[in-house]
Amino acid sequence: MPATMMKALRKLRPERGANLESVAIPSIGPNEVLVRVSATSICGTDLHIYGWDRWSASRIKPPLTFGHEFCGIIERIGEEAAGVAPGDFVSAEMHVNCAHCHQCRIGEAHICQNLRIIGIDQDGCFAEFVRIPAANIWKIDPAIPQHYGAILDPLGNAVHTVLAGPIAGRTVLVTGCGPIGLMSIAVAKACGGSVIFATEINAFRREMAKKMGADEVLDPADGDIPGKIRDATGGTGVDVLLEMSGNPAAIRQGFQALRAGGRASLLGIPTSDAALDLVNDVIFKGATVQGIYGRRMFETWVQMSALLKAGRLNLEPLFGERTTLDKFADAFELLQEGHAGKVLFYPNGKPH
Amino acid sequence: MPATMMKALRKLRPERGANLESVAIPSIGPNEVLVRVSATSICGTDLHIYGWDRWSASRIKPPLTFGHEFCGIIERIGEEAAGVAPGDFVSAEMHVNCAHCHQCRIGEAHICQNLRIIGIDQDGCFAEFVRIPAANIWKIDPAIPQHYGAILDPLGNAVHTVLAGPIAGRTVLVTGCGPIGLMSIAVAKACGGSVIFATEINAFRREMAKKMGADEVLDPADGDIPGKIRDATGGTGVDVLLEMSGNPAAIRQGFQALRAGGRASLLGIPTSDAALDLVNDVIFKGATVQGIYGRRMFETWVQMSALLKAGRLNLEPLFGERTTLDKFADAFELLQEGHAGKVLFYPNGKPH
Amino acid sequence: MPATMMKALRKLRPERGANLESVAIPSIGPNEVLVRVSATSICGTDLHIYGWDRWSASRIKPPLTFGHEFCGIIERIGEEAAGVAPGDFVSAEMHVNCAHCHQCRIGEAHICQNLRIIGIDQDGCFAEFVRIPAANIWKIDPAIPQHYGAILDPLGNAVHTVLAGPIAGRTVLVTGCGPIGLMSIAVAKACGGSVIFATEINAFRREMAKKMGADEVLDPADGDIPGKIRDATGGTGVDVLLEMSGNPAAIRQGFQALRAGGRASLLGIPTSDAALDLVNDVIFKGATVQGIYGRRMFETWVQMSALLKAGRLNLEPLFGERTTLDKFADAFELLQEGHAGKVLFYPNGKPH
Amino acid sequence: MPATMMKALRKLRPERGANLESVAIPSIGPNEVLVRVSATSICGTDLHIYGWDRWSASRIKPPLTFGHEFCGIIERIGEEAAGVAPGDFVSAEMHVNCAHCHQCRIGEAHICQNLRIIGIDQDGCFAEFVRIPAANIWKIDPAIPQHYGAILDPLGNAVHTVLAGPIAGRTVLVTGCGPIGLMSIAVAKACGGSVIFATEINAFRREMAKKMGADEVLDPADGDIPGKIRDATGGTGVDVLLEMSGNPAAIRQGFQALRAGGRASLLGIPTSDAALDLVNDVIFKGATVQGIYGRRMFETWVQMSALLKAGRLNLEPLFGERTTLDKFADAFELLQEGHAGKVLFYPNGKPH
Repeated sequence: MPATMMKALRKLRPERGANLESVAIPSIGPNEVLVRVSATSICGTDLHIYGWDRWSASRIKPPLTFGHEFCGIIERIGEEAAGVAPGDFVSAEMHVNCAHCHQCRIGEAHICQNLRIIGIDQDGCFAEFVRIPAANIWKIDPAIPQHYGAILDPLGNAVHTVLAGPIAGRTVLVTGCGPIGLMSIAVAKACGGSVIFATEINAFRREMAKKMGADEVLDPADGDIPGKIRDATGGTGVDVLLEMSGNPAAIRQGFQALRAGGRASLLGIPTSDAALDLVNDVIFKGATVQGIYGRRMFETWVQMSALLKAGRLNLEPLFGERTTLDKFADAFELLQEGHAGKVLFYPNGKPH
Repeated sequence: MPATMMKALRKLRPERGANLESVAIPSIGPNEVLVRVSATSICGTDLHIYGWDRWSASRIKPPLTFGHEFCGIIERIGEEAAGVAPGDFVSAEMHVNCAHCHQCRIGEAHICQNLRIIGIDQDGCFAEFVRIPAANIWKIDPAIPQHYGAILDPLGNAVHTVLAGPIAGRTVLVTGCGPIGLMSIAVAKACGGSVIFATEINAFRREMAKKMGADEVLDPADGDIPGKIRDATGGTGVDVLLEMSGNPAAIRQGFQALRAGGRASLLGIPTSDAALDLVNDVIFKGATVQGIYGRRMFETWVQMSALLKAGRLNLEPLFGERTTLDKFADAFELLQEGHAGKVLFYPNGKPH
Repeated sequence: MPATMMKALRKLRPERGANLESVAIPSIGPNEVLVRVSATSICGTDLHIYGWDRWSASRIKPPLTFGHEFCGIIERIGEEAAGVAPGDFVSAEMHVNCAHCHQCRIGEAHICQNLRIIGIDQDGCFAEFVRIPAANIWKIDPAIPQHYGAILDPLGNAVHTVLAGPIAGRTVLVTGCGPIGLMSIAVAKACGGSVIFATEINAFRREMAKKMGADEVLDPADGDIPGKIRDATGGTGVDVLLEMSGNPAAIRQGFQALRAGGRASLLGIPTSDAALDLVNDVIFKGATVQGIYGRRMFETWVQMSALLKAGRLNLEPLFGERTTLDKFADAFELLQEGHAGKVLFYPNGKPH
Repeated sequence: MPATMMKALRKLRPERGANLESVAIPSIGPNEVLVRVSATSICGTDLHIYGWDRWSASRIKPPLTFGHEFCGIIERIGEEAAGVAPGDFVSAEMHVNCAHCHQCRIGEAHICQNLRIIGIDQDGCFAEFVRIPAANIWKIDPAIPQHYGAILDPLGNAVHTVLAGPIAGRTVLVTGCGPIGLMSIAVAKACGGSVIFATEINAFRREMAKKMGADEVLDPADGDIPGKIRDATGGTGVDVLLEMSGNPAAIRQGFQALRAGGRASLLGIPTSDAALDLVNDVIFKGATVQGIYGRRMFETWVQMSALLKAGRLNLEPLFGERTTLDKFADAFELLQEGHAGKVLFYPNGKPH
């Protein structure tokens, strides 16, 4: 008789913390698949859910199995599911689009009007198994290692941001060197970015930024970021700003460092009002500002996979602790202290 | 003996007003031309200079002949000037680029780092003659009427803004129906914009907006602009926002009315801080925000001329008073009251 | 008891002709819908199938109900079909993509590697009912008239071709004025094309081209098409070539009339080798040549609907005979003589 | 007294060969500069001129100093020349555009209708000094070595071709591994091309292709290039074809290996008719075909310089013999045998 229960890390009540519980393995509909989770990674969003901040309180409805970065092996498929098979090594786009709204119809499903997120709006992947619509499954090329497979979701954010406009032969400024900022450095360099500047207040992360390939890493505490960058670019400023911090001061510095006619791609979520100087930093500059959300379905996945498969991205410095689900409390604590890279859980046991 | 003196409308002192004076006809360098001004039009910027606001005080160095919208006939050319000849019917791009900075080298001369503007940084076209670099001359197709020739500068702003992204088959919102906003309505419609919404607080201008082809003209005083526009677009919002007002409230409404994935092209200059809600209106929306400045040299001129020559743009409703330079005081007063369309001066006499 | 049989126009044997038969109303799967056909239009491809040319012999496997341009009312939906409901007024994209190949994953489903076409590879819409995947259904805005709803498939070809690159303020040459060529004229004009040239050997169609809005219609029999077009464009040539004829001579003339740096979008299918002068017409010219196939799913449908709903396209001159399915022999004969516009069948009876 | 005469390699008569002569140092106009040539490189076109083929006979008007790839130091500038100064280390765009035709006005000066080429239509750089319009001068960043400075013209062809469309995360096929094909491999890899395939019939050049970074180098003599490439890309074909051979068989194979929706950028000049299968290789495929000519002025130069300055391109394997102008006969012979990489002349003496 097949197993019917599984372990899952769940938010049970509207408060800080989580519980490892035994719950029923999800049943799947005709257009869905069930995936046995090999490895899953903790996102900053998961930290918010664990800590139960204001955003979590407004969005999350306990009880919920959270987690949305993972890879695994397909266990079972629905009778209408096409293009997938049991045994496939896969990850998934966890943003589930409606397929019928204006944006879905014009190829912009990543900003669907009715988006639901697995791991936020329905049970996610901090579990032995996760249920996914077949259309959201991404088959991983066997050349790509398992630990890379577990971080395709945030890597996709980085690839989406970097490739949202021309990058080859352009100077680049990455403001904020959290995991996605760090990945952006590697992606920008692999795609022909010429000089890559990065700013970051945390010394440990500045060190990481160098390892990821940044040409010049600056500490905002040393002052006058825009001036230093203009000096280093012959007075012109950078061609491309990749905003990864959500920090109002960093955003302001980034825009001041951007050249007239440059591109500013914003992924970081400002936690407070971040006033742009529309006149001087956008209009007179003829700048282009792009809001970046999620990953293009599935163009970003194709680009990311091609870069990984061809060995263009070395992300090894990013990886930190690898552990099992029952050690969740230690893992979240580690991350909250800001000392760890990407932490991976192995819900079905660590690889040997 | 040829005339050596001419009449010119000049700002002589750092204060409100202007003087009609007799000054020397400009001498020209080897790469320049002298144009006899047929018709010249008053820009909002000229109103600021006339009234001597804070911006004028910081930028304008009297004495200065102002004015930068015009057409005329080439009188004389420098010995190195190529592609032009005496007798040519011309207008000119009054933004003079350096040709050597980064932006000039990559085809973005309109945002040159060393831009000088004729009529602001050096003597302009409110005069019988104006001196222009040969490279800035635009030959006007004879099929285009003289009064249209006098407003190519602001029409170019409108064309640059509308065509800064796809427009065919897209819903459009124009916020602010001053002359350039009104022109944008006509241009958007001629280029396949589907439904054109316009907002404007001034009743006279709302009437003009309808004449220019807007499908739905809204008064912000009636409330909830974003809600009305979302209702009229099946809940989606508009594909394209053309911001022509510089008014912080209009900018905010415009962004709220923009669909996820939409384009916001900003030409209006905010007179005070215009805080964008970066999180909800740009990032989560995956919106693209473009600062628009001047006209592309000379792609915008080519597009504008093709549309005019083919008769795709009816701008007749825009034109107001036509007068001579010595009536300048009446003309500026008329404009300041907000009742006039584009006012034209004929420095060398009105056409019969 | 509901009806179980319906009338359908079918190709029964590998030979010229077709038969009107009574067949079972299709049953539908969980992700499909059944549509009651209101109006259906005859495509040139249907003429080939009816006449049984070499292409038909190699592709069509009788017995088959053919026809792929239609609109109708949803009769029934499968249990997994989302975003659709019985009673909806709809058309459909008849190219069915696999959703899993490289092209489907990157948003280019119209050139899916495993495309199947309803009406060619499986039973089509020359019948009282047609079975369609729910994902291929296009809901028609009620503002769009029924006879327009029947020709969205070829109109989509025209819109896809015209909007495959910039068109506003550009000179355009349409080579070949069959139905899609004629539609392209109207679309190019509505989207800001400046001067629209058209070439066509058939006098009746040249007349139609003028009605659709072409500025200059040329008969290739009068000679030197490229020379005439260069003369009419100041020696430069046209910005955009929309090739709709498939005729090798027209293709050659079109490329010769194209300006350096121009765009050539090819939709017409050459029936014999059409040698391009790659050196002079493509490489030295820096031209861009685009193969156009089908319609973008569903960006083209969105653009087309927006243009139709806003009343930007007057296609009335295009429509010819409106008849019932039992008159099919007369209808095909009429079209083969080349005298008719788009011929419509009403399988469930003509509207009153 | 300054020198008035200089040595120059000249084509004196319409026949094979060239002569090293003493001629007057060019005098310059007000908008021109005189450059003392440090290093100059031999292009395939120079080989044609030296050998006097049919193209040369139709285009070249002896006597002519040929040569158009170089770098040097500005000796003197005209009185109107701006943005340049004696002593500047420079190269130049040798395609001189008219600045007034349609293409020049819309930012496509590289396909100017009145293009003149220095070294072909007027005296070039196989000399101690060369006269250049100031607007065509390109200042070389001091971080870029002199021998790289001498090959910016062909490197610009490669950069223009590779960056004529998206390249990051795309599979690429380079057909033909002459100098520009080889450079394209390095550029495509530096800009994020994923798998780079190359085809070449010459074993020596296949070896070079590997050194430049190609992932898979194929010999067309081994048969079925398209089949092998489709197999290596999961049946899909390559995203991007960079055609550098001008060989009709290679062009055909390249198009067959291109995926549906792919980009084919053609730089190689076919020496005989190269029939495309428009139906299967362009139209049904929805492919985009781009003719590539010269270098974008000066966007390509900016991109190329940024890549070089940042050390993203290792072109060392490309360089062959370095010699002086008087050894020209040996140099041309070497190249005609096909054994050499880029051969450099040092007209003012070899560097120590």
